[in-house]
Order: sequence, then structure tokens, then C-alpha cells
Amino acid sequence: MDPTQIDLTLEKIRAALEADQVENAIAALITLHPVDRADAFSDLDDKSQAILLPEFEIGDTADLLEELDDAEAADVAESLSTRFLANILDAMQPDEAADILGDLPPDRAAQALAAMTESEDVIPLLGYPDETAGGLMTTNVITLSPVLTTEQAIDFLRKMAPGAEAPYYLYVVNQDQRLLGVVGLRDLVISSPKTRIQDILDPEVIRASTEMDQEDVARLMVRYDLTAVPVVDEQDVLWGVITYDDLVDVLEDEATEDIYRLANVSDPDLTYDSPVGVSVRRRVPWLYLSSLTALFASWVISQFEEIIAQVALLAAFQSVVAGLGGNSATQTLAIIVRAIALGELDSSEAKATLVRQAIIGLIQGILVGALVGVGVAFWTGKTYLGLVLGLALLGNMLIGTIVGTMVPVILKMLKLDPALASTSLVYALTDSAGFTIFLGLATLFLPQLI
Amino acid sequence: MDPTQIDLTLEKIRAALEADQVENAIAALITLHPVDRADAFSDLDDKSQAILLPEFEIGDTADLLEELDDAEAADVAESLSTRFLANILDAMQPDEAADILGDLPPDRAAQALAAMTESEDVIPLLGYPDETAGGLMTTNVITLSPVLTTEQAIDFLRKMAPGAEAPYYLYVVNQDQRLLGVVGLRDLVISSPKTRIQDILDPEVIRASTEMDQEDVARLMVRYDLTAVPVVDEQDVLWGVITYDDLVDVLEDEATEDIYRLANVSDPDLTYDSPVGVSVRRRVPWLYLSSLTALFASWVISQFEEIIAQVALLAAFQSVVAGLGGNSATQTLAIIVRAIALGELDSSEAKATLVRQAIIGLIQGILVGALVGVGVAFWTGKTYLGLVLGLALLGNMLIGTIVGTMVPVILKMLKLDPALASTSLVYALTDSAGFTIFLGLATLFLPQLI
Repeated sequence: MDPTQIDLTLEKIRAALEADQVENAIAALITLHPVDRADAFSDLDDKSQAILLPEFEIGDTADLLEELDDAEAADVAESLSTRFLANILDAMQPDEAADILGDLPPDRAAQALAAMTESEDVIPLLGYPDETAGGLMTTNVITLSPVLTTEQAIDFLRKMAPGAEAPYYLYVVNQDQRLLGVVGLRDLVISSPKTRIQDILDPEVIRASTEMDQEDVARLMVRYDLTAVPVVDEQDVLWGVITYDDLVDVLEDEATEDIYRLANVSDPDLTYDSPVGVSVRRRVPWLYLSSLTALFASWVISQFEEIIAQVALLAAFQSVVAGLGGNSATQTLAIIVRAIALGELDSSEAKATLVRQAIIGLIQGILVGALVGVGVAFWTGKTYLGLVLGLALLGNMLIGTIVGTMVPVILKMLKLDPALASTSLVYALTDSAGFTIFLGLATLFLPQLI
Repeated sequence: MDPTQIDLTLEKIRAALEADQVENAIAALITLHPVDRADAFSDLDDKSQAILLPEFEIGDTADLLEELDDAEAADVAESLSTRFLANILDAMQPDEAADILGDLPPDRAAQALAAMTESEDVIPLLGYPDETAGGLMTTNVITLSPVLTTEQAIDFLRKMAPGAEAPYYLYVVNQDQRLLGVVGLRDLVISSPKTRIQDILDPEVIRASTEMDQEDVARLMVRYDLTAVPVVDEQDVLWGVITYDDLVDVLEDEATEDIYRLANVSDPDLTYDSPVGVSVRRRVPWLYLSSLTALFASWVISQFEEIIAQVALLAAFQSVVAGLGGNSATQTLAIIVRAIALGELDSSEAKATLVRQAIIGLIQGILVGALVGVGVAFWTGKTYLGLVLGLALLGNMLIGTIVGTMVPVILKMLKLDPALASTSLVYALTDSAGFTIFLGLATLFLPQLI
């Protein structure tokens, strides 16, 4: 659906609401795909939303809450009566219902849960941390007994299936609910009707444990091209399933997190339209941290105050050394952080990687140091200034690639997020090293520079 | 599968090869999941690979080529005889076979294509650019006629299906192959046997056009939670389908691209273990570009050489202003680039976003400028130095958020990648602005600073 379609529908809805024709407004909204409907609904003002919401059918409201973003869904849920909200939660996927309950004030959540008729699907989900397989899974999973024939299984599906979130893999469990294997819906369809499930099930089903980190689950699904993965406890009892749509959300959140952290934004929920107050609160602490590292670099420079007073031109070029060292480090940092995030780089390769990146840094340092050094020597007419700058560039770009490799690898070894704080730390090191090398060399060559 | 399992199997294979027991080596390799098998195969040396490869069955070799990364698959393909390679390509998914043919030298590709028996599935794919829907789709798609009953359709699937890459949506086409709608395999299973396809098909199927950019296809699939999307031409004729596994690859490549570009690495294929020569060639051009912008900033500073000669301490603090302005800009840049990549920020919101980010920059500037300014005033005992630094920080952090918003938005409007070159441009602007404001203010307050 293109954005124009949503905009046209919004115009119709607004016109209908102004003319007090609520039914026409609802009719226009319902023509949209549920995803687009949620978009259009978000774009309406609070008053229009309050007028429309009570007129929705329960199923449509459930769809709406599933598609809205978390904060907005919680707002809408809070505005509903407990009875109506409970009915809607019953109609939602258990994992989505659990997410909404988790975002409500605890007393409202308890009331809604008490009023639900299908709370037994949702309650087990409330106990798992959000970012684990247990927190991500839905309990709405169809299981088959191994002794059924495919014909019986299809009959069973005919009675059971509509609305199941993960309908393409069917999990086979024994009487204790232990996972025996998986049958693809396709295998069911293409086998002859009298075949027993136990003869076509694949016992080597790839599974996640309830406490597994969501990023690890995502890596597993990506690696084996799975559209769903079953979630089991230590006894192999099947508790739920994580589906494709959850995977995509995790992958996108992860990528946002990595990009943000490399840019010193620690909260992946911050967006271009987050309120000013929230944005400032989340961003300023990192700027204060950067201030400290920048002031440390200032202190390094201040140790060379006398040299600079004699050759003020040094002040013009010190930033070139620090900046290009930082640049060389950031390139390496991005490559290493991404490799760790994608699960490609493991600790056995750390040493070889460090050597390779150091060689890259050395070659880059020679290439950039030579060109910039010679260029500046001609520009300023001071051969020794060019020499000092070129040598300092060489040294600092080598340091940059070493630091850019070691900082994320060491953070990873300490079980910290390799993207976190890497940039600040890396810049602190390359800035200080750059200033020290450049101004230190300048001190050595002072007679030639004056 | 955990890495240990792969390592254990590798040990067995190496032991078997040393004892000249090729069959045992093959047997050990075959126990692994095809994904892990490709991993293990990659870890063997060239000689072992050359010994094992001819012993593989055609289906296993096809699996292997599908799972290896592109460059390695092409190497393996080149080492095979034309006849054997053609048989393997026939056994592969058409889109994967087309990718391999595209990576081979043109004469080898032509020979292999001529020797294939199912080249008609692959040839249409060779004409589409790699990064379009046409280049990404597979032609291996099952279509149904609308007049079939569900019972007939299931019978048809029983004869046709095994090996289809996208088996969970069935596309319904008329005699001209125009797309009429989609039927889920689940709908087929749960409908009564005599129902006609035309009565259960969903005509509102979301589709991609052959020339659509792969990122737009990915956005579409993510937005509507699709595990597959049909690809049609202008006449709505169905040419192929893009599946889930392709989507995940596109999402990960996109995220890598964004992270790399923000770190001045232009080639998303560069990894932590890319050869030194390739890495240097891809990274150095960006460092030369950064050198130019850094030297421009040096030129700005050199205009204030006389001031610095009188107050050398200024050289210690100029980098704080430039650095924190750059930091403030990078935070905004990451948030804006990500919002554009996820399709959240459109041009109608550009102005409001600019205003919001500028306000954030102003507040951040006041908070950081005040604290750092007062801190430096105490540290150095020079009130006016603190004042100049604080004011310069305020100004440059405001400029940072404005530049961090405008550069990617303008690049996007010019239909350029918003992540591309943003960082270099943004730093060039914040560095030069930072030095100018700080040293300019210092010139104004010179009598108080000496």
C-alpha cells in the first residue's frame, strides 16, 4: 500500500468525523490493511481516536493493538474499560497480549488479567524477561500426537487452525509435552493419507531454550533459514514458538542498537520524533563522558604549551593527526563490531585479526602519512613540519587500527556489549596518542621547526 | 548446532583424510546440517577440499554451493568439470544457480548454461540487476488455476511440490499467467475438499515489480509480515517469488551498509578477515577524503596563528569544541539515517524534525557548555577562557544537530544514499565551524585572555 492511499483514507475519515458520520469513518478505516490501519489511526488526533475506538469490533481492536507501537498500544489499552480490554486481550496473540499487560500500570494489568477468560495462555509468558526466548515466544502453538495419520492430522487442523500464528510447522509431542520432532505442513499435505506422523516427523528439530537471549535465537533462525523455532525447557517440554515476525523485529532492533551505540546513543528506542526532553536526557550523559575524554586530550596538549607558543602552526595540524587516527580506528571498529554481532568473529581468531588490522593500519599510515606530509611540507614551505606530521600520522593510524580491534574484542571477552562505549574509549585513546606523538616529535625537531 | 560439534567433525575428517579413508571423511561430513557442512568444508584446506568434492553426490554438492558464501561458491564451481557443474546447477534453486553463473568467468558460464537441461528456469533471471526484485527472486514457484477444487489442488501439490522454495503461499494465475490472488497452504488444508480455489483466494495480494529495489521489497515484506512476496511485471504477469531467506540477507546487508558508511567504509563486503590488499584499497580513498577535510580545518586554524602564538592554551581547547560538536552531530546523524533506512521519516516531516533536533542541540549546548565552561574556568583560573569555551560549545553543538539532520535529508532528496559521505561532510562542517567560533570568540576577548 503506498502512503498516498493512507493519506486519502485519512482525509475521508476526517471529513466523515467533521460531519458526525462515525460509521462512514469506521467504514473507510476498515478498507485498509491492518498494518496501514494502525498507521492511519496513529495519525489521528486524540479526540478522533477516542470517538472511533468504542465503535470498533473486538477483532479489529485486537488487530489494531497488535500493529501499533508499544507505547501507543499501552495508551489505547489504558483508555478502554477493563471488561472491553479483557475481551480484546483474549482475542489477541498471547505474546502480544502479554506485552500490552507488561506496559500497563500493575493494578490495571491485574484487573484486566482477572477479567480475561483465556488468561492461562498469557500468564506463563509474564514471567520471562522481555529479551529472552520465553519473553518473545507465543504459547499459541499447534501440537500433534505421533500416532495420528496425516489424514487425521489434517482433520484436526481443520477444526483447530484458524488464527494460529505459526501454522507452517507442526510440532509433535509425547504425552508429557516433550518435543519429539517437527512436521512441515507441506509434508503433511504431500504424504499419502494413511501415513503416520511418527513416520514423517523430523526428529532433528532445531530448538531454543526459554532463557536463551533473543539475539542468539535470531542468529539461530537466520543461520538455518527458519521461519519458526520451538522453545523448550530443560526437560525438552514445549512451551511455545518464536515466529518470523518476531525475528525480523529482533534483527532490526539489533542493527539499530549497533548503529546507535557506535554514535554514542545508548537508547535504541530513541527516534527522530522522540520528545525533546527524553532525547536530551538520553543523549547528554554520553556528551558529558565525551567532554571528560576531550578534556583529558586537552590536558595532553597543555603539556606542550611552550612548544606551541614557539611554533603556533603546530596547533593547526595537531587535529589532523588525532582526526585521521580516529578515522582509521572507526573503520576497524565498525568492521569488528559488525563481525561480532553477526557471530562471525570468535575469540580463536582474535590474534590473527589484530595482526591483520595492524598491518592494514601500518600500510594506511604510510600511504596517508606520505601524501599529507609531503603536501603540508610544500604548502607551508617547512620540510620538517611535513616530516613530523607524516610520521605522527603513520604512528597514530597504526594505533587506531590496534585500538579499534582491541577495545571491542576485550569488551566482548568481559561479556559487555562490544558496541557500547567503544567509540568514546577509542577516540579518547586515538586523540591522546595523536597529540602526544605529534607534539612529542615536534619537541624533538624543535630547532628545525622554529 | 554448537561450534564444538563442527570442530569435532572437522577433526574426524582430517584424521580420515590423513589415513586416506575418503569415504569415512565424507560420511562424517554428511552427518552435519547442510549449513554447518558448508562451514566445515570452508575450514578445510584447498587440497582436502579438492579430494572430497568429486566424491559428493550431486544433491549434496548443490546444497554445499547454496550455503557457501558467494566468492567461495564461485571458486568451487570453477574447479568442477563443465558437465558435473551443469548437473549441479540443474539441482540448485534457480536464483542460486543464476548467482553462481553470474560470478563465473563469462565463457565458463556460457558453457555450463549450454550443458544444463533446466536452463530455461535460470536464463530469465540472468537479465535482472542483482539488487532488484528480479535479481533476487526465484522462478521456482507453484501456481494454481482458479477453477481447481482444494482436493485437486492438494493432489497437484502431492505430484509437484517437493523442493519448492516457497511452498506456503500458492499463487493463483489465469491462462495468461496474470496474478489473480494468493491461497495459503493452511487455507487449502482447512477448507472442505470440494471448495474451488477461486472462492478462497485472497485477491488483495501484496506484490513487487521486477525492477523494484531490493531494499523496498524488504521494507514491504517487513511491514506486512510476509514470508514471501510474488514478483510481477507491468502486465501483472507472475515471474517469480522472493522468499524469507532472501529478505533476511537483504536486511543484514542493509544494516551492515549503514553501519559501515557511517564509519567511512564504503564496501559492505569488507569483513574482519578480508585480505590486507583489498581492505587497504577500499579504506584509503575515504581516509584521503578525510585528510582533505581535516586540512581545510587546519587552514581555518592557521588563520588564527597570531592569536594562538599569544595564548597557546587555546590550542589545548579548540579540539574540545570541534569534537563535541561532531559528537552531537553524529548522534543526530545516526538517528536520522536509521529513520530514513527504516522508512519512518518522510520528507513532509523534514522541517519539524530539523526544528526538534535544533532545540535538542541548543539544550545540549547549554548543559554541556555551562558545565565544561565553568570547569575549565576553575581548572585554568581563567574566567574568560571558560566563557569563550562555553559559548563556543553552545554554538557548535547547535550547529552539530542542524548539520546532522540536514546532510542526510538533503542527500536523500538528491536520491543519494543518506549514509554515504554523511560522516565526512558532517565532521568537515562541525570541525571548521567549531574552530572558527572558538578562535573567533577568543579574538574578540583577546585582551581578557592574555
